[in-house]
Amino acid sequence: MLETISNRTEITVRFSECDPLGMVWHGNYIRYFEDGREAFGKQYDIGYWDIYSSTKLAVPLVHIECDYKKFVGYGEKIIIETKFINTAAAKIIFEYTLFNEKNQIVCTGKSIQVFLDAEKKELIITNPTFFEDWKKKHLG
Amino acid sequence: MLETISNRTEITVRFSECDPLGMVWHGNYIRYFEDGREAFGKQYDIGYWDIYSSTKLAVPLVHIECDYKKFVGYGEKIIIETKFINTAAAKIIFEYTLFNEKNQIVCTGKSIQVFLDAEKKELIITNPTFFEDWKKKHLG
Amino acid sequence: MLETISNRTEITVRFSECDPLGMVWHGNYIRYFEDGREAFGKQYDIGYWDIYSSTKLAVPLVHIECDYKKFVGYGEKIIIETKFINTAAAKIIFEYTLFNEKNQIVCTGKSIQVFLDAEKKELIITNPTFFEDWKKKHLG
Amino acid sequence: MLETISNRTEITVRFSECDPLGMVWHGNYIRYFEDGREAFGKQYDIGYWDIYSSTKLAVPLVHIECDYKKFVGYGEKIIIETKFINTAAAKIIFEYTLFNEKNQIVCTGKSIQVFLDAEKKELIITNPTFFEDWKKKHLG
Repeated sequence: MLETISNRTEITVRFSECDPLGMVWHGNYIRYFEDGREAFGKQYDIGYWDIYSSTKLAVPLVHIECDYKKFVGYGEKIIIETKFINTAAAKIIFEYTLFNEKNQIVCTGKSIQVFLDAEKKELIITNPTFFEDWKKKHLG
Repeated sequence: MLETISNRTEITVRFSECDPLGMVWHGNYIRYFEDGREAFGKQYDIGYWDIYSSTKLAVPLVHIECDYKKFVGYGEKIIIETKFINTAAAKIIFEYTLFNEKNQIVCTGKSIQVFLDAEKKELIITNPTFFEDWKKKHLG
Repeated sequence: MLETISNRTEITVRFSECDPLGMVWHGNYIRYFEDGREAFGKQYDIGYWDIYSSTKLAVPLVHIECDYKKFVGYGEKIIIETKFINTAAAKIIFEYTLFNEKNQIVCTGKSIQVFLDAEKKELIITNPTFFEDWKKKHLG
Repeated sequence: MLETISNRTEITVRFSECDPLGMVWHGNYIRYFEDGREAFGKQYDIGYWDIYSSTKLAVPLVHIECDYKKFVGYGEKIIIETKFINTAAAKIIFEYTLFNEKNQIVCTGKSIQVFLDAEKKELIITNPTFFEDWKKKHLG
C-alpha cells in the first residue's frame, strides 16, 4: 500500500490577487489550495464534478488552515503540492505545500471535506462506496 | 410620470479590494455596481430573489461598462448612486455614479440585464407582467 | 484587568460571494474575518492604517484557520464577532465567531498576525511600545 | 505595417468563479481580460512590470466594457483572444473575444489604459517613447 499520493501544479500570481503591500492577499491562498485540489482531482479522477455526477454527493469544506511563511508578489510562479491524507473517517483530507521559484516554502495548509447528500442537505457519515473503491485503486 | 428613480448607498473600501498600487483594483467596481443594484432592489422590492421567487426568472447581465475617473484607496468611503433607466425593451438598465468623500466622481458605469427563464435557460423577449406592474407602481 | 475585548459587526452575503451550491464559497469567510478585524480596529483604534501611520509597521497574517458549521446563502445576514486574544508574544491574535440570523454558529476561526518593518521587510520580535500601550489602555 | 497583433491564451473556469446560477459570475470576466492582457504582455514584452520597471509608468484602466453572449460553467475551458488596437492617442487599447470549447463566442470586451507617472500620480498625455518604439517593433 502506498502511503500517500500527491499532485504538483503551477500557477502564476495575478495582479488582482495582490494587496497594497504588493504581495498576495492572504485570503487568496485559499484559492490556490482549491487550484491544487482541482489539479489533484484531474490527475486522480476525483474532482468535484467526478464525485457529484457519479454520486450526487457534494464535498463541502468543514475546515481550512494556512500558515504563511514567505511573501510572494505579482508575476511570481508558485508550485502547489497537494497531498492526499488517508483516514478511516468519512472525510477527504488534503495537505498543501506551496513553493516559490527558489523552491522555498511559501505556505503550508490543510483542508478537510465531508460528504453531503446535495438534495437532502444531509451529512454522510460512513465512507461512500465510491470513495472506498477510489482509495483501493489509488492507494492500493 | 417620474423620469427615474434611484438609490444611494455607501460602502467602505476593503483592504483586499486594493491592488499593489494601493488603489481599488478596477474589476472590483463591478462588485460595487452589484452592491448598488442590491441596495436599489431592497429599496424598491426588485432584488434578485424578489424577481426569482415570484417569477422563476433570473436576470443575468448582458452588458457592463465602467469609466474610471479617480483613484480610491483602502478605508475610503464611496457613495454608489444607482439610477434606473426606463426602456420599452425587456431589459433592466441601470446607470451608476460613484462619489468619494469629497463628492468627486470616482467612476461612472452602466449595466444591462435581461430576463431569463431559469429552468429552460431561455431568454424572455417581451416585458414580463410583473416588471410592467413594478414600473407602473414606481415610475407612475 | 479585562479578560478580553470584542466587536460585533454585521454583513449581508453578496451574490458574488456564493458558489454553484448557492452558499458562501468557503474562501470568502476569510474576507468576513477581515471585515471583523476592520470593525474591531475602528472601535479600538487599531486598524491597519492606525498601526502603519503611527509606526510604519505592517501586520501581515501568519496563520489563519476556519471551521465551517452551517451553510449561509445569498442575502442572509451574518454577525461577525471578533475577539482579541491577549498574549505575551509579539503577535495579534483574534478569534472569530460568525452567527446567522437565528443566532446559530455559522463558523469559527482564528488569525495570528505579526509585526513587520514594512521598509526593511523584517519581523519585529519584541512587542512594539505602541501595542503595549494600546493593551494597557484597552485591557487595563 | 501589420494591422494588429494578438494573443490567445486558455483558462479553465474555477469553482470559486461561478455564482449560484452555476455560471461564471459576470464580474469575473474582468479577471479573464486581465489574464488576456498578461498573456499578451508576456508574448510581446509589454506586461505591467515590463512597463513599470523600464519607465516608472503605471498603466491604469480608464474604461472597461463587456458584452455577455453565452453562459460558461465550472470546469469549462475558455480561450481568451486579446487584440491590440492601434491608436495615435497616448492610450493602450485592447479588444477581447472569449470562446468556449465549441468555439462559440462567450463574450467580447474592450479596455483602455492610460500612462500614469506612478510617483507624481500624473497622467502622461503624449505617447511615451518606449511605447512608440514598441509599436514600431511589433506593428512595423
